[in-house]
Amino acid sequence: MSARKACIVGGGVIGGGWAARFLMNGWDVAVFDPDPEAKRKIGEVLENARRSLPGLYDRALPGEGELSFHNDLASAVAGADWVQESVPERLELKHKTISRILDAAPETAIIGSSTSGFKPSDLQDGMAHPDRIIVAHPFNPVYLLPLVELVPSPATASAITELAQDVLTSLGMKPLVVRQEIDAHIADRLLEAVWRESLWLIKDGICTTEELDDAIRFGFGLRWAQMGLFEIYRVAGGEAGMKHFMAQFGPALEWEWTKLMDVPEFTDDLVDLIAGQSDAQSGHMSIRELERLRDDNLVAMMRALKHNGSGAGGTIRDHEARLAEPQTDELPVTVSRQIPQSWTDYNGHMNEAHYLEAAAQASDRFMEMIGADADYIAGGQSYFTAENHIRYLSELMAGDQLTITTQVLRGEGKKMHLFHRLFGGDGTLAATAESLLLHIDLATRSTSLPSKEVEDRLVTYAKAHAALGTPEGAGRYVGQRP
Amino acid sequence: MSARKACIVGGGVIGGGWAARFLMNGWDVAVFDPDPEAKRKIGEVLENARRSLPGLYDRALPGEGELSFHNDLASAVAGADWVQESVPERLELKHKTISRILDAAPETAIIGSSTSGFKPSDLQDGMAHPDRIIVAHPFNPVYLLPLVELVPSPATASAITELAQDVLTSLGMKPLVVRQEIDAHIADRLLEAVWRESLWLIKDGICTTEELDDAIRFGFGLRWAQMGLFEIYRVAGGEAGMKHFMAQFGPALEWEWTKLMDVPEFTDDLVDLIAGQSDAQSGHMSIRELERLRDDNLVAMMRALKHNGSGAGGTIRDHEARLAEPQTDELPVTVSRQIPQSWTDYNGHMNEAHYLEAAAQASDRFMEMIGADADYIAGGQSYFTAENHIRYLSELMAGDQLTITTQVLRGEGKKMHLFHRLFGGDGTLAATAESLLLHIDLATRSTSLPSKEVEDRLVTYAKAHAALGTPEGAGRYVGQRP
Repeated sequence: MSARKACIVGGGVIGGGWAARFLMNGWDVAVFDPDPEAKRKIGEVLENARRSLPGLYDRALPGEGELSFHNDLASAVAGADWVQESVPERLELKHKTISRILDAAPETAIIGSSTSGFKPSDLQDGMAHPDRIIVAHPFNPVYLLPLVELVPSPATASAITELAQDVLTSLGMKPLVVRQEIDAHIADRLLEAVWRESLWLIKDGICTTEELDDAIRFGFGLRWAQMGLFEIYRVAGGEAGMKHFMAQFGPALEWEWTKLMDVPEFTDDLVDLIAGQSDAQSGHMSIRELERLRDDNLVAMMRALKHNGSGAGGTIRDHEARLAEPQTDELPVTVSRQIPQSWTDYNGHMNEAHYLEAAAQASDRFMEMIGADADYIAGGQSYFTAENHIRYLSELMAGDQLTITTQVLRGEGKKMHLFHRLFGGDGTLAATAESLLLHIDLATRSTSLPSKEVEDRLVTYAKAHAALGTPEGAGRYVGQRP
Repeated sequence: MSARKACIVGGGVIGGGWAARFLMNGWDVAVFDPDPEAKRKIGEVLENARRSLPGLYDRALPGEGELSFHNDLASAVAGADWVQESVPERLELKHKTISRILDAAPETAIIGSSTSGFKPSDLQDGMAHPDRIIVAHPFNPVYLLPLVELVPSPATASAITELAQDVLTSLGMKPLVVRQEIDAHIADRLLEAVWRESLWLIKDGICTTEELDDAIRFGFGLRWAQMGLFEIYRVAGGEAGMKHFMAQFGPALEWEWTKLMDVPEFTDDLVDLIAGQSDAQSGHMSIRELERLRDDNLVAMMRALKHNGSGAGGTIRDHEARLAEPQTDELPVTVSRQIPQSWTDYNGHMNEAHYLEAAAQASDRFMEMIGADADYIAGGQSYFTAENHIRYLSELMAGDQLTITTQVLRGEGKKMHLFHRLFGGDGTLAATAESLLLHIDLATRSTSLPSKEVEDRLVTYAKAHAALGTPEGAGRYVGQRP
């Protein structure tokens, strides 16, 4: 595609998110919003988007298109391939805005609306070109979350729906075509049900907002982020299948487990419909395979949440801090752990970078042992790695146990030269990692001398380990003959 | 704590998950379940748990306790510190089971129930020692998800509630104490509301189970996995605050956005209550800080989902495949990308292991360029890295652009010796990574010769690059003087 143009009408958080999606995927973007603060507001969203959207990918996004702000709608929509309306949720305002867009935009432009509540036929009512109007309802933050509910009405041209799907996919989004229009589409109906039940729980004093959030994020939120509701229930139902699961939980529909009691009748037809759709959705995988996929994703996501300690990531961090530190033999054991499934690659074994991740954890642990710990780092001093050499001697697989010992080859002044041995569960030497670290003043980011206490401990280790001699594989260059 | 004992009464998926949690945290576990299949069923859950639970941690879990199966309840509960009841959801069965447990268990044992629906006072009704009975409602898979709803009734001893919290925390779980008992506790009320609305949507033909799951997992599921409902809405509301957000969305409560229409009255008191609780929960962070935390978590989780391509991970994979490959100059450009925020560490810069992750991506890309691509690997041949040497020359930060060029130092027979240069956004040489890869037969996992086509392309690069001479930093050993 050559450079294409999107026009964003209404520049709040949602309009700004759309602007970022288009712009960072190489489109020119023209913004129309009478709000004098629009430029600042969109600028803030763009700043967030630039910091995060490219981080999803291991390749560069196309260069950004051109961003412009307009005081009149006509110049903003001129030449646009897509016009996205994100004005407040008042039907008469939406009608007025869309009518003006249709007057000024090219005849080929798709007119998308971000409405979360109105049906496309509500928007099309009385408009000159209903066939070009479609609901494209995104989710905040629009620049990161893939979902767009794409809702045509019977009056929307099917070519518009198809083209809109292609465009949204090209922006890295997941267009979900809603085949039958309904107030609030699909996701917001689910959100509304939870919102209403939540308001009851808070109002009745059962829990606080924080407790309710915890009830979501430490439990089913983690399931839903990867699979959703029905596939997760299919797994829970086990080999007996979705029909069995529903038979088991169907009766609860009549219990007062929610304040929201207008419940569908639980007929055989409904059970068959759901079981059949679930088979079509997930029947290509056995329950055991689905369980493992679910678990692999949970491990990977919960490990990801450790980075900031949010939700389950915080629980894991806290628990990990309570786990015993590795015991020390002749050499300090600096890592003792199992290899997570998220560390494997296309060759079916632990990826080369994770050997270094584990060795870096060994260096971190050794730093703690000599007193260069979190407090020391918070005080403005640390060690940075200057050089690493890794030999891969045997494969390690997901689930294998990994133990690392650390030998000090040299430790004095600014320098800390370590030799890590990585052992598999059967005691086989799987890799060695030789690391040279330099002591750093974090304010100047340049080398400096460690505290006397840290240096003393380091030197003590270095002296004790000197008797062990230089290990095989230390001092090697890449490709050197043994 | 010395070795402690848990008794698991009822060994299905939930009982098995409890058994795994206790066992893998060093407790002895005795199982009582009259089902002749109990041993097999628990074995399957344990197998799943052993593969995944340790993967959450960067330290080893304590050694497993002893697992035993019992035909009589008395021997199973003997000496138990915790007895967990997970029998089917029929009140008379729960009463009979708990009564027998109370007869046989030590007087100090906590009696936890996994019930998802009954209040603790329902369970305590007519029991000899109601003070020792507490609901401990976990979430499947119990061995991975941290949440346990811990629900005492007024008759439960407060010492039991406190002790239960300590024990659950020591198992790596997140006990959420539900202060006021209610049918189905908190999380299952939210789940039930969504379930009921979902049944309507399926029954009315609005969407299929798969479309409904997609409406969750590509959108709000990713938000909820980290923050939950109210904190996410607080962020969406922006600097104007939670009160403003509620004023904006409150009126929708009266709209038919769900079939579940018994809605709480939207009074000022309710708004104040929620806004106040939200301030207490999240008021220590600005909206901008919350936005960035949300985005950092989204990037990290969505990157984690790329590993298996589930949900949003699949969308990112597909979009990435459509992004242009890096352009080649004198040397092939094998990586061009932005550095994600999840790649940083406690020193505030890109962690040393991610330099290698990026260099490994450069090796992968170069393999593709010579024809050792996904099809070639699927055909049973690949390259494994035997040795790496990395020099860290300058810091790289989250958000920095990274470009890698690849020079072939030697390429013939089984050997592929590469030299990657990692450049920051301003063109500074930030690191070099020298890699020796060996061609591997994936069936025997030993070295072999590449296909003629792959070797020819490799040799062509090697000859062209020979004219460039040996780069500075190649052939170095760790700590060598420049």
